[in-house]
Amino acid sequence: MPATPAWPPRSAPRLYVDAELGEGIAVPVDGNAAHYLLSVMRVAEGDCVLLFNGRDGEWASRASSIRKRDLVLVCVEQTRPLESVPDLWLCAAPIKKGRIDLVAEKACELGAAVLQPVLTRRAVVDKLNLDRLRAHMQEAAEQCGRTILPELREMVKLDALLRDWPAGRHLFFADETGGQPMRTAFANHSGPAAFLIGPEGGFDREERAAIRAHPAAVPLSLGPRILRAETAAIAAVACWMAANGDWAGHGC
Amino acid sequence: MPATPAWPPRSAPRLYVDAELGEGIAVPVDGNAAHYLLSVMRVAEGDCVLLFNGRDGEWASRASSIRKRDLVLVCVEQTRPLESVPDLWLCAAPIKKGRIDLVAEKACELGAAVLQPVLTRRAVVDKLNLDRLRAHMQEAAEQCGRTILPELREMVKLDALLRDWPAGRHLFFADETGGQPMRTAFANHSGPAAFLIGPEGGFDREERAAIRAHPAAVPLSLGPRILRAETAAIAAVACWMAANGDWAGHGC
Repeated sequence: MPATPAWPPRSAPRLYVDAELGEGIAVPVDGNAAHYLLSVMRVAEGDCVLLFNGRDGEWASRASSIRKRDLVLVCVEQTRPLESVPDLWLCAAPIKKGRIDLVAEKACELGAAVLQPVLTRRAVVDKLNLDRLRAHMQEAAEQCGRTILPELREMVKLDALLRDWPAGRHLFFADETGGQPMRTAFANHSGPAAFLIGPEGGFDREERAAIRAHPAAVPLSLGPRILRAETAAIAAVACWMAANGDWAGHGC
Repeated sequence: MPATPAWPPRSAPRLYVDAELGEGIAVPVDGNAAHYLLSVMRVAEGDCVLLFNGRDGEWASRASSIRKRDLVLVCVEQTRPLESVPDLWLCAAPIKKGRIDLVAEKACELGAAVLQPVLTRRAVVDKLNLDRLRAHMQEAAEQCGRTILPELREMVKLDALLRDWPAGRHLFFADETGGQPMRTAFANHSGPAAFLIGPEGGFDREERAAIRAHPAAVPLSLGPRILRAETAAIAAVACWMAANGDWAGHGC
């Protein structure tokens, strides 16, 4: 008797959809997603596609009703429950297009719960295309196995962010004028956390004073080299995940 | 009496050059570097430009003999000695163009000493343009303040890398089949280190067995999400720098 093929197969494509997911539910797919499944991944009738929508966990589905530009995916069984990611917010000033896209992609892969754009005085960019950022996060979630997207919030001004800061959430920020090494800061400040990352030109003096004066603020040093804004964001999230997040074999 | 302007000014452009640097030495600049200084940064006669070449530390120079497409920079004084960066190698399989460029740029910014390309069986890309990678590292070094570039080595095959592995250097690698959390691994393995990062499709089974069997190998877990190759490389270097490198206020 031949061995039963593993189900779902490891090579099954993984797709974010908006639709509700549940046993027997048929999800119609067209547009770019259909092109990806049919022309790039060569999905055929009966093949498995993994689906998630950020609410119902991950579902294995079977491809059916394949036509040239669309198909239907019928949910068979839940393969993973909805996960909870570590309670980390990334509050980042908008920066140039390719680099803020990278921040959105990596924040998702690395496991951040929230991406909060923050407008600061030295921002070179003062508008963000949230739909484009969301698309980058969806693609990253498809690739990295997340069942829930980071929550992408509307941009707020720095003073409003500080004014409405939730009690009990540490506000880590890289302070050029000096701060604690990350490993010390993370060891001394467990629990819900956020990073505040400035734009290309950094925070101005008044902004830095306002952040430092905030009761939740924890100034960090990110080492002797000057990191670009997106590098600081990615490095900080990775270091926090390794120290206080879920990279250590347990939740935070 | 007016205050003496700070020298060198904080806004001085910073440029990597091949030429020898020393008091009174005149460095001719043309091509893209001259275009950057004259058209982008609007450098004028007498303005300060910081120079480094990876050998002689950082020197403040003054612009002179400015013409349409070239100028001369005359070294005035050394502003920083040649630094030593933490003893970390990044051994990375080649991946798609934009993503390996990102690895080179971020390895430089984050402080790696060596970038060693490694050819593995599942590599989608089997050639690398080292000149292009070096250009990305030079630009990153100009921006982040390094006085020495990461050493960019010629690509080697994985089996040769393992065979010639230097005694006393830990070989950290992300093992999908399980490994230590980074914080534990770094705490237990101080001293010279390297990360080995596979291509998009990971190492194959035999490769993984050969790496695991190496006496220097330390398998790591990079958490519950599947990281892209470049994300794993950047995250690993950042986490090592924060734990065992020079982000903690002291050398490793």
